[in-house]
Amino acid sequence: MEARGAPTEVLLQRPWLPVSVSGCQLLAKSWFGETAYHVLLTDMHCVWEERMDSAAIQKRAQELNKRLRAPVKAFFSHLCEVAQPCLTGSDGRADSEAQISLTRQEDGGNVSMKLKSELAGLPFYWEFDCAPAPVTVVCVQLVRPLLAMSHLLQRQVKQLGGLLVRKDAEIQDYRENGATLSRERLQTDVFEEQAYKEDFMSKALPLLCSEQLHSLGFDGEFQHLYAAVTQTRKRKRQTEEEPPPPPPPPAEEPDLLASSLGASVSSEEEAAGAKTADRPAVQQSLPVTSNAAQRPSSKPKKKKVGLFR
Amino acid sequence: MEARGAPTEVLLQRPWLPVSVSGCQLLAKSWFGETAYHVLLTDMHCVWEERMDSAAIQKRAQELNKRLRAPVKAFFSHLCEVAQPCLTGSDGRADSEAQISLTRQEDGGNVSMKLKSELAGLPFYWEFDCAPAPVTVVCVQLVRPLLAMSHLLQRQVKQLGGLLVRKDAEIQDYRENGATLSRERLQTDVFEEQAYKEDFMSKALPLLCSEQLHSLGFDGEFQHLYAAVTQTRKRKRQTEEEPPPPPPPPAEEPDLLASSLGASVSSEEEAAGAKTADRPAVQQSLPVTSNAAQRPSSKPKKKKVGLFR
Repeated sequence: MEARGAPTEVLLQRPWLPVSVSGCQLLAKSWFGETAYHVLLTDMHCVWEERMDSAAIQKRAQELNKRLRAPVKAFFSHLCEVAQPCLTGSDGRADSEAQISLTRQEDGGNVSMKLKSELAGLPFYWEFDCAPAPVTVVCVQLVRPLLAMSHLLQRQVKQLGGLLVRKDAEIQDYRENGATLSRERLQTDVFEEQAYKEDFMSKALPLLCSEQLHSLGFDGEFQHLYAAVTQTRKRKRQTEEEPPPPPPPPAEEPDLLASSLGASVSSEEEAAGAKTADRPAVQQSLPVTSNAAQRPSSKPKKKKVGLFR
Repeated sequence: MEARGAPTEVLLQRPWLPVSVSGCQLLAKSWFGETAYHVLLTDMHCVWEERMDSAAIQKRAQELNKRLRAPVKAFFSHLCEVAQPCLTGSDGRADSEAQISLTRQEDGGNVSMKLKSELAGLPFYWEFDCAPAPVTVVCVQLVRPLLAMSHLLQRQVKQLGGLLVRKDAEIQDYRENGATLSRERLQTDVFEEQAYKEDFMSKALPLLCSEQLHSLGFDGEFQHLYAAVTQTRKRKRQTEEEPPPPPPPPAEEPDLLASSLGASVSSEEEAAGAKTADRPAVQQSLPVTSNAAQRPSSKPKKKKVGLFR
């Protein structure tokens, strides 16, 4: 099931980043290796993916760029450079040099993302051709994390409800002993779980659909929670052979997890880049310009450039 | 995209019910129509489905039961009768007459559920042959509901945190005015959102994996929440042409939603059968024995029974 060079775990720990191309709102996850990549896209109605190894990249590059004869290594760093901003939602910058367009087939068909950039003075074309992802991939990357997140949140709701009941008991004791408030407006209603839930749902449900349009529901704290549960899964697998830990968790785990959840995040970019100790930020995953020397820096003469023939 | 006779909306509003066959823990959703069915299975690592219409059922019935020559209508009610308990997790009863076994192929392959029962005095074989479901189905039935549930719960957590802060302000005011507790143990710590979350996550995350084994995470309140968000989706679609409602929700909706969420449920069966006004319980979806008359009640002679030749 593992793709060459794109382990599920690596992609799992990437955040889903909002991407907007040709008026289409998507979430993307991507991994770029040495001369290989793995891209996931979703609009929450379907999930698409493309896994490409060195040979496949070479073949497509030549199909799309007839005169290109360079080996993959010679142009892959350029491809990363232009594709990465598109796939991390950070292509709004003024210095973005790639033109990008997206076409999608009817329900369940492919999504194709076309890039046009300039390499060695000539146009360089690329196309991400993403097909509907296998269900197993969707389960790993979305269903199970979302299920885990829901469970965590559900337990928090329960726990906070319990805390409120205890606060009310404390308040009641003060009042029964004759205490009064100096400011009337500080008085709260007694928390009643059942009534609260009914009231909450009656107000929240009608608003649900419209609110999810923003970044398809993956931003801020939601990204943090996703990161936390996917990190858990990784650590769980690493320790699967060991006996299950006793209820009080081992001391070295909480800090990392807490820090990845703890920081209050205000913007999507911060959430996306959430840097925890063992999760490299997206930017760091690119083979940062070690091949850049292969891109000619002097202005090439037409029809006699380094990468094209 | 719609299957004949098994509209997505109908299946969407069915609960995911825990099913245990041949030592395999799964969740199932099923719909049985006149002479057609639609079954979904998942272990949260993959999702499988089978949609069968009248002709396909007829063909398979004859392949599996060489001497069967009866039309679909003649044996479909029997198939429902024996298959339903298996697919709703209620086959632990003593009067269950069907033998059932499950085989699954390697990652991403099919899941096959074989049934052997007795019809008109002869063995009747059936097989549900479920293939990995299209990604779009997984998104409708799992990804989007789970995303919506997570968002609702996340907002509840935020709201309850706010309530706790208000309780603390009230308590502080009592104390600043000299109030004391009659019982020391009633005193609570000041709620600090950030510290609470860090502490919660450090304790909850390590336990997450082991706890999800029970009914794959779909029981009790979780079922109710799933029902609530999938109902929302239905109502949303029905009113999509209308202008969006203003923030205060229309008065007629809350009651239904609240009632489907409100009841505190202790057992899976109750959760599974959660009867809201417009969601038929699983049992009610079966063509309840209108064809039962076709099953001979007298003991048939060998090789000359009604349905077999």
